[in-house]
Amino acid sequence: MAKDITPRATDYARWYTDVVNKSKLADYSPVKGCMVIRPHGYSLWENMQQSLDRMFKDTGHVNAYFPLFIPKSFLAKEAEHVEGFAKECAIITHTRLVATGKEGASALAPDPESKLEEELVVRPTSETIIYSMFAKWIQSYRDLPLLMNQWANVVRWEMRTRLFLRTTEFLWQEGHTAHASHEEAIAEARQMLEVYRTFAEDFLAVPVLTGTKTESEKFAGALTTYCIEALMQDGKALQAGTSHDLGQNFARAFDVKYQSAEGTWEHTWNTSWGVSTRLIGALVMCHGDDDGLVLPPKIAPIQAIIIPIWRNDEQRRQTVDAGRQVLQELQNAGIKATIDERDNVNPGFKYAEAELQGVPLRLEVGPRDLEADTIMTVSRIERKKTPVSRHGIAETVLTMLHGFQTELFERACDRRDKATKDVETWEEFVEAIDAGGFVRARFNEDPEVEKQIQAETKATVRVIPFDAPEDPGPCIKTAQPATHRVVFAKAY
Amino acid sequence: MAKDITPRATDYARWYTDVVNKSKLADYSPVKGCMVIRPHGYSLWENMQQSLDRMFKDTGHVNAYFPLFIPKSFLAKEAEHVEGFAKECAIITHTRLVATGKEGASALAPDPESKLEEELVVRPTSETIIYSMFAKWIQSYRDLPLLMNQWANVVRWEMRTRLFLRTTEFLWQEGHTAHASHEEAIAEARQMLEVYRTFAEDFLAVPVLTGTKTESEKFAGALTTYCIEALMQDGKALQAGTSHDLGQNFARAFDVKYQSAEGTWEHTWNTSWGVSTRLIGALVMCHGDDDGLVLPPKIAPIQAIIIPIWRNDEQRRQTVDAGRQVLQELQNAGIKATIDERDNVNPGFKYAEAELQGVPLRLEVGPRDLEADTIMTVSRIERKKTPVSRHGIAETVLTMLHGFQTELFERACDRRDKATKDVETWEEFVEAIDAGGFVRARFNEDPEVEKQIQAETKATVRVIPFDAPEDPGPCIKTAQPATHRVVFAKAY
Repeated sequence: MAKDITPRATDYARWYTDVVNKSKLADYSPVKGCMVIRPHGYSLWENMQQSLDRMFKDTGHVNAYFPLFIPKSFLAKEAEHVEGFAKECAIITHTRLVATGKEGASALAPDPESKLEEELVVRPTSETIIYSMFAKWIQSYRDLPLLMNQWANVVRWEMRTRLFLRTTEFLWQEGHTAHASHEEAIAEARQMLEVYRTFAEDFLAVPVLTGTKTESEKFAGALTTYCIEALMQDGKALQAGTSHDLGQNFARAFDVKYQSAEGTWEHTWNTSWGVSTRLIGALVMCHGDDDGLVLPPKIAPIQAIIIPIWRNDEQRRQTVDAGRQVLQELQNAGIKATIDERDNVNPGFKYAEAELQGVPLRLEVGPRDLEADTIMTVSRIERKKTPVSRHGIAETVLTMLHGFQTELFERACDRRDKATKDVETWEEFVEAIDAGGFVRARFNEDPEVEKQIQAETKATVRVIPFDAPEDPGPCIKTAQPATHRVVFAKAY
Repeated sequence: MAKDITPRATDYARWYTDVVNKSKLADYSPVKGCMVIRPHGYSLWENMQQSLDRMFKDTGHVNAYFPLFIPKSFLAKEAEHVEGFAKECAIITHTRLVATGKEGASALAPDPESKLEEELVVRPTSETIIYSMFAKWIQSYRDLPLLMNQWANVVRWEMRTRLFLRTTEFLWQEGHTAHASHEEAIAEARQMLEVYRTFAEDFLAVPVLTGTKTESEKFAGALTTYCIEALMQDGKALQAGTSHDLGQNFARAFDVKYQSAEGTWEHTWNTSWGVSTRLIGALVMCHGDDDGLVLPPKIAPIQAIIIPIWRNDEQRRQTVDAGRQVLQELQNAGIKATIDERDNVNPGFKYAEAELQGVPLRLEVGPRDLEADTIMTVSRIERKKTPVSRHGIAETVLTMLHGFQTELFERACDRRDKATKDVETWEEFVEAIDAGGFVRARFNEDPEVEKQIQAETKATVRVIPFDAPEDPGPCIKTAQPATHRVVFAKAY
């Protein structure tokens, strides 16, 4: 099959769009800024959901579902929050369409009589509606901590969109919790960030930096935003997940109070945290190559594909039979395997298609393999070929998949580390940012200076790493004394 | 604990609302017509999703995700469809809120400059957007059948709402398929109805009638709507799931065509089918009693609860230890079990709470049970008490849960059958409808007559049963000859 994928070196942005489209992860929809997540992409999301949901439940969280719509007055209750979201909202004003007698798009118009008294906003995030319910449910310290999560769609009106990375509607989860003390809330926010880090690194094989956002990059309404930050192959950073210490900001805005053991009434301390279908974009951009997707086995819908190879009907019968037996053994061992028995396309086409879709391991079963009692395995990483014995094939494949997962992560770490530079001067900084990658530099954390740096170089502070070692010296921009380094990059 | 549940005999509607609220399935939200699905209710939905999703995948369907928004011109493309949905739509007209300088709800207003060129509608169902994508994806007969499903939220603006049964926003799944022939599409629609029947009866223990809707009750845009129809304890019917033969209506509206093996271009034949969070309402109303929910074990988040009973610290230690051992055995056997070790409430409170939440089986472990090496089991159905041996407790509980599931279904069948009457005359009909239940009567299937019957009695044709036996006689209303009986009832 002809893949027609633009090589990364030619045009990274086009490569990304080509891979997402041609591997059938997603498609553009007729609604501006909204995408269709196709079955292949959605199965990745389902696998992510399953793993994350298990981790959320293991840390004591329960799922619930809150309304899609938020009264506009709710948004206005938290000053920073409304500032952050009011300009990118889908606003519902009417509830009935009536026929106009005209043609085409004008055939229907909102019925003026169905105008809402108060406009509703499609949730861009659910702090306001959720904390308004928490206020109803929380009475006593015995009701705390309250640990909830919801899987939902959200809408942020975006002018420039890219499949998975930035779309008007996206799917995500948002955790919302209430605690009796600030310490406990911080511990929760940090714990969930650690869940995200574990998920990104152990499941997606995407190495991430963890730490804090600067004032200008934090969530609208939070005291502190923690994040996991990944580096893509083109040297741009991608914020892959955030966890917020909301302090008492929303508890005050929505009057979420509990009676302490001592009988006093106190505002709760809240956290929220989320990851989204953006992670699929991270997966594509972290591991993909010029042949298409490369998926980590732990998240791949298909981990191994068996391709029988024949030249005549007799061979076809034999190799398909043998392939099916291998399939059975792999599936019995819990491996997500499939066999491609199609006879209207040749093996080369099947190889290319499986590569495009990112299947980690290919097993070729040809007549010579049958004679030698071997199977030719081909790794999706650089098409490494390894003949293996037919006996104990399931165990061999399990070992190879395990090795694949590790190798993918190590390659990504290696790439990230090579693209991370320490710089001392503004000239070095500008040059390093221009070249792409994470740039570790001393910075005085002044929001005005950050704005200026962004204006001049397009770089932002991606993360102030946790426990950054003392490394005093002059700020990269102002030469004022700084105590440690922060991580800059251009970002998606 | 005081439950304060209005008895069914006093006021069935209030009983329903009380049970839903007090068992913490759902809560009213500050957004008119929208509900919050609380963790207990959401865990029911998760269990339903899991079972249904497995059945969908086993029948060859894949999940995908389509946009929340639908351009208004899309709705207008299928005449009956727009007729059915235009009057209950949430309409997006603007994308930015700006500060007005006023107070409260007026502090923000839609920015006139952000007015959309074409208004968007929040999906009330997704035929239009999905078939517009199918048109892009389907080229050849080799692309058929295309079998997709999506789990999503939808919005239908409702004036009078009831938790789970009728809310402005609800969660559901909608299957959408494309086929090369009408026969195949009909077979698909019938197959998915059978999946729904199996799910309703085998998992939810809710018996359902299956058949066809009349013209006036069918889905807007379908040729034929098939349905599963259940009967609630108050004698009112509840449509629990529908499956539609869409013919070529949407294929024509959105130009979904395939090239046949012979090289001609043909419109596809489509089906769609859905069930929603309404099923949770069915579950409550089919099985619940004056003490609260009664949940079938196959869908219950907790199947068995262990309650240790003590009068002093020594006994507490012993019964809690024994209870934990039982818990371990039950969980090892795959039973969803829990133990209530709280010491700030008494056993009576715990019993009442578990009953309210619908836990099928309660296991009491008291000092006398320890001595006798027995456990007292109490079924949620009529609080039947059965002492059982401590030995082999997991197997005993499995058997009891199995029996519980069967008993619940049989009771519901029995109730339904007793509330189903055959009537011959209009007087009998009016009387039977007034008394509640399914009323089987001959009917000439004239939409005008159906309207008249509804106006006079509030009853509608719930279903024209599949393979209704020949049973000729006069139509209940017009005395014109009719060949078989259809099922009438008042409905939710």
